[in-house]
Amino acid sequence: MTNNKMISIAKKRGYLYPSFEIYSGVAGFYDYGPLGSMLKNNILNLWRQYYTVQEGYYEIESPTVMPKEALKASGHVDNFTDPMTQCHDCQQVYRADHIIGEAINKEVEGLPDSKLTEIIAENNITCTECGGKLEDVYSYNLMFKTKIGANGKKIGYMRPETAQGIFIAFKRLARFYKDKLPFGVVQIGKAYRNELSPRQGMIRLREFTLAETEIFVDPTDKTTPKFDSIKNEKIKLFSQQLQEENKEAEYFTVKEALEQNIVPSEILAYQIYLAKTFLTEIGLPENKFRFRQNLPDERAHYALDCWDGEVETDEYGWIEILGIADRTDYDLSSHIKDSKEDLTIFKEYDTVKTVTKTVPIINNKNFGRTLKKDSTEAKEIIENTNPETIINSIKENGSYIITIGNNNYDIDETLITFETKKIEEKGEKVVPHVIEPSFGVDRIVYSLLLHSYTEDENEDKETRKYLRITPQIAPVKAVILPLVNKEELTTIAKDIEFETRKNNLITMYDVSGTIGRRYARSDEIGVPYAITIDYDSLEDKKVTIRSRDTLKQKRIFITEISKVLTDLLNNNIKFEEITE
Amino acid sequence: MTNNKMISIAKKRGYLYPSFEIYSGVAGFYDYGPLGSMLKNNILNLWRQYYTVQEGYYEIESPTVMPKEALKASGHVDNFTDPMTQCHDCQQVYRADHIIGEAINKEVEGLPDSKLTEIIAENNITCTECGGKLEDVYSYNLMFKTKIGANGKKIGYMRPETAQGIFIAFKRLARFYKDKLPFGVVQIGKAYRNELSPRQGMIRLREFTLAETEIFVDPTDKTTPKFDSIKNEKIKLFSQQLQEENKEAEYFTVKEALEQNIVPSEILAYQIYLAKTFLTEIGLPENKFRFRQNLPDERAHYALDCWDGEVETDEYGWIEILGIADRTDYDLSSHIKDSKEDLTIFKEYDTVKTVTKTVPIINNKNFGRTLKKDSTEAKEIIENTNPETIINSIKENGSYIITIGNNNYDIDETLITFETKKIEEKGEKVVPHVIEPSFGVDRIVYSLLLHSYTEDENEDKETRKYLRITPQIAPVKAVILPLVNKEELTTIAKDIEFETRKNNLITMYDVSGTIGRRYARSDEIGVPYAITIDYDSLEDKKVTIRSRDTLKQKRIFITEISKVLTDLLNNNIKFEEITE
Repeated sequence: MTNNKMISIAKKRGYLYPSFEIYSGVAGFYDYGPLGSMLKNNILNLWRQYYTVQEGYYEIESPTVMPKEALKASGHVDNFTDPMTQCHDCQQVYRADHIIGEAINKEVEGLPDSKLTEIIAENNITCTECGGKLEDVYSYNLMFKTKIGANGKKIGYMRPETAQGIFIAFKRLARFYKDKLPFGVVQIGKAYRNELSPRQGMIRLREFTLAETEIFVDPTDKTTPKFDSIKNEKIKLFSQQLQEENKEAEYFTVKEALEQNIVPSEILAYQIYLAKTFLTEIGLPENKFRFRQNLPDERAHYALDCWDGEVETDEYGWIEILGIADRTDYDLSSHIKDSKEDLTIFKEYDTVKTVTKTVPIINNKNFGRTLKKDSTEAKEIIENTNPETIINSIKENGSYIITIGNNNYDIDETLITFETKKIEEKGEKVVPHVIEPSFGVDRIVYSLLLHSYTEDENEDKETRKYLRITPQIAPVKAVILPLVNKEELTTIAKDIEFETRKNNLITMYDVSGTIGRRYARSDEIGVPYAITIDYDSLEDKKVTIRSRDTLKQKRIFITEISKVLTDLLNNNIKFEEITE
Repeated sequence: MTNNKMISIAKKRGYLYPSFEIYSGVAGFYDYGPLGSMLKNNILNLWRQYYTVQEGYYEIESPTVMPKEALKASGHVDNFTDPMTQCHDCQQVYRADHIIGEAINKEVEGLPDSKLTEIIAENNITCTECGGKLEDVYSYNLMFKTKIGANGKKIGYMRPETAQGIFIAFKRLARFYKDKLPFGVVQIGKAYRNELSPRQGMIRLREFTLAETEIFVDPTDKTTPKFDSIKNEKIKLFSQQLQEENKEAEYFTVKEALEQNIVPSEILAYQIYLAKTFLTEIGLPENKFRFRQNLPDERAHYALDCWDGEVETDEYGWIEILGIADRTDYDLSSHIKDSKEDLTIFKEYDTVKTVTKTVPIINNKNFGRTLKKDSTEAKEIIENTNPETIINSIKENGSYIITIGNNNYDIDETLITFETKKIEEKGEKVVPHVIEPSFGVDRIVYSLLLHSYTEDENEDKETRKYLRITPQIAPVKAVILPLVNKEELTTIAKDIEFETRKNNLITMYDVSGTIGRRYARSDEIGVPYAITIDYDSLEDKKVTIRSRDTLKQKRIFITEISKVLTDLLNNNIKFEEITE
């Protein structure tokens, strides 16, 4: 099992390990050790180069603690739930759909709680721990709940996604972008999901890092000027149709995907291409990932269409590492409704439109006398009702009835008349649609380590294990090895470490053990280059640089080391092209 | 007020704004907007260059949610509290020391709850809202509390500092560093403090970012090899003595600070110097900050000595932006005690020591027969008791008494004898001491913006407002301005934006408004360079580059823009040295 071998190295060498080990650990939490943290930072820095520098989506940072109102509006208070059942006797808790699935081998995800309760009763499913009776299924909210402030009245939650922080700040962000669509905003940060009982290591975390982009677009225009330059690039799609026909994922050009209505818009297709390019550049082998269209019953409540970037693993099968969704105007509209704020963009028409409009003229004096304290609300109702409806009702019944609380009001011609006039309209308010590429950073780190793990045989038919992490992303760029532990060599080695670090290169000095063991150790943690100082170095002022992947060696001047490493990392030269 | 002017720009232009504004906001939370987030990232990247690349302290990332056990051990469950009192009538909550301070103008911070309750009663201090009676003062824990998992039994807290994640992973980290002292580990991330009612904007946040370093050292050796090279550098210290004598902070060389016993160790002094260098490089004016020694009554429960980096502000006086503390072995010892894990380092002696030791020899048969189930615990007690104590007791009283639960056991010579032998000791286990530089990132961002805000007069005697942020840290490096909105110029401008971004430079295209207004707008957000494309550009293929700070201009070739900008940002050239 590659998974087990990789995790074993990751724990031992300081990439990743379970959190709180000295307190017996807590499921669903993982630490990034010294190497893991650097790997993650390097991936995120490259991600920023793609999404913020090249695409021009500015980054924001909003709090991880959020007040209930905001997450009520987004639907998470009501819908971010798992069906749960608890044993009446031993109090053990279970995901209801999982325990049913295991007991009767049937997929019941998505069914309502009442239905699940029925199935448990019908099939006499009991607690797997003690055989006790399982109680009624209920919706368990997956957000970590807390209280803000001391009086206990303000409920807060740890955010389930970073996206909401972007939607809530929409007005500020639209202003930053001079109120012009399209524009994109990214956020990288922690998100939380208080799983019942996570059992899959790095794959199901209760605290994880997301890198999310929200691209706000005109609902009637989901094209992108970048489409043309990439339309012939290939992407590997596992469409709804291919899934339903029990086929495999297939390559399509971006253009074909769009023309065959597999992907619904240029922007979504472009984002799939962009994600593919990013994953390839960080070093995920292309034959190990695909983009799978979510089937209608597995899409989130807000998504029109969604494609998951999936990676193949030996331990967990195909796992989702990112999602690219069309969230439509769901979020902004929800926040408009709950906050009463105007989260729209004024979209100017190309030419001013002259429209004929019928508008209500309210007789304020009579209106106030009749409706008193309900006047304001009644006016709002009238403004939001089609004038034709009111006019017809008055024509046919003599009045239009408005109900506020327990009061019915007859609105007649003494209170309201209508006027038809020509109005010049320069544009209209639109609630933007949102295209969202959302990356699960921890799963990307996991997948990358998994597929970097390599075993091959050296000349002596011994197994060589190494992490084939691409140099640009690798945590430590070079290990500095004095051939033996003698001061004349170690002094040079330490100077090289100092000099390379001054040039912003992370290098690591290692003098303990035989040179063979030290090569093996640096291979195991994925250091792409090894620099060895030997007795010849004292004479010719040169060192040997060795490539982790090809095991080829070159001799270069000590004074050239930083430059050669920098050129290799920036892909300015290949290892074979190093001039000795 | 510089504070108000700066905050007004920061809100309007996308640096910083209160969070959750559309839901009426929640005190103690701030968003980093598009420019603020980039400023913060740039500061953190430079911080990493100092602490991880140059100093070689590797970074880790541990969870923000922590189980209660870990924070019980660290002392936060019991001691991370504020004294609180609540109005009996209207339920308003108050910091007890604050309401007393305001009512009777007396400093009462640090007094026990019972004493504060007394003072409130004696002085008849009542609710400032409704005049109601204030209830007994109690300790309000400042951590956000939550539950991990569904059964409600596992209590968790949002971490109050990132440091604990490092201490808890100490064994893993020591192994990564091959169990050799000294070594340092950094963590950058969110920490939380559920303030009662924060009212100071960015200065008192409930969720904030820390950049913390824990340097593990031999308790008997707090020197550093780097000391020698910086011993004549000057640092501005506000020592305990200077504070007590009502004097001002004074400059000392690092060496003087140590020799005059103002700073207790080389490492602490070196870290103060390093922090000073960092703050200066990001652009904080040296005359606006100082290092103030904590007075004995304001030091945290774990600190032997602590120096706060403080910045002068017009709105809040001197504020703490970082702290450099000697935490001794407080944390590791606490975790050893609670977790029963061995968090020590084996320190080898230079030469093997031969020591004479008296060791207990237990007669296991008799011991087991007499002490039964208490045997194991009794053996542990014996091993941890000085042999002389037991020998003397047996000599004088015939036995040594061990009490376990309700049982007293007479330990006599039938159960235990002693043997004196020579033992070779290669070294000893030590619990490392910890030196901690801890940076409050949000306050650093705030201070930097505050002291970047500049007003001066232009030639026309108009006030020019700008943020004098050092180019290396500035979010946007250059604004690209077509002189007028004509396609021949805008095409070139857009190409320049594309080309510079390809070279990893964040640039911003702006075409709306007069050139004067656009200069003003980019000055206001602190863009260090403006690049203007005019009709001459069509002929000579050159553009004008303008310096925000000096207003000087140079004409450079379009093809040279990225190189010139990169050279300026890396301090390879000064603006005046640009060749036209």
